[in-house]
Amino acid sequence: MEIRELGDTDWPQVWPIVRDVIRARDTFTYDPEMTAEQARGIWVEAPPGHAVVAVEDGRIYGTAKMGPNKPGPGSHISTASFMVAGEARGKGVGTVLCRYALDWAREHGYAGMQFNAVVETNVTAVEIYKRLGFTVIGTVPGAFEHPVQGRVGLHIMFCPL
Amino acid sequence: MEIRELGDTDWPQVWPIVRDVIRARDTFTYDPEMTAEQARGIWVEAPPGHAVVAVEDGRIYGTAKMGPNKPGPGSHISTASFMVAGEARGKGVGTVLCRYALDWAREHGYAGMQFNAVVETNVTAVEIYKRLGFTVIGTVPGAFEHPVQGRVGLHIMFCPL
Repeated sequence: MEIRELGDTDWPQVWPIVRDVIRARDTFTYDPEMTAEQARGIWVEAPPGHAVVAVEDGRIYGTAKMGPNKPGPGSHISTASFMVAGEARGKGVGTVLCRYALDWAREHGYAGMQFNAVVETNVTAVEIYKRLGFTVIGTVPGAFEHPVQGRVGLHIMFCPL
Repeated sequence: MEIRELGDTDWPQVWPIVRDVIRARDTFTYDPEMTAEQARGIWVEAPPGHAVVAVEDGRIYGTAKMGPNKPGPGSHISTASFMVAGEARGKGVGTVLCRYALDWAREHGYAGMQFNAVVETNVTAVEIYKRLGFTVIGTVPGAFEHPVQGRVGLHIMFCPL
């Protein structure tokens, strides 16, 4: 599995991954109705933002974006987001992407990485993050409307770098 | 002190308040170098966002913005931000604005209000929020670069509605 920068020609392969994740409404606080172009604008940010894909045999199995969590006096803390294709879940793609993001943030001098809204029922992701050094800073009760489980909490997670 | 919607002709009075707050770099994770127009775009959001001013004798002493904290499955939780003119601090303007935002959010059916980044050294604000029903969900260590106190924590605060 290779991680490389998301290039101009990758979006047709990335969009179905992003679309399926946001339309499932169970892990991301994104507008599930957003268009491909709106999603591209959110996912592929201008520098210092950085977006990558996880590729094997020319096929994209996952994607990540990373960059400063806040501007100005908050810009020394990074954030990142990860999406994995449905057929590639459970194969470690998320772990590889998260490890890459942490390395990237460390190399770029960030002092930590913060996740602002990790759905508490997304236990696979929470476990990956914990294994890689994140702790739950706090949980906002009922802040996420899950299609099956109703209102569940959103974790704020942090990893010092 | 009257709270009313921020109108098209108010920005010349609001911008100096916003400018002074963000250039002080001690309470907001905004880019301190942003222009008046960039700040206006961030502060005065399209509906469902809502921006107001606190007015007395035709003069604007403070401003607030409010709306959904996240899109999609997070949109039932509101957020808000407040700025008070330097010469009007300690006169209760912040409290009046925060109370207004909570009432607005309740009337618009939000289930809670979340603040994503309250600088822990901004004790005046933290005390106002606690008095009005907020609790600290967690604190991200060293996430704010304070010009005098160095890296200080950012509270995530929440008030159920």
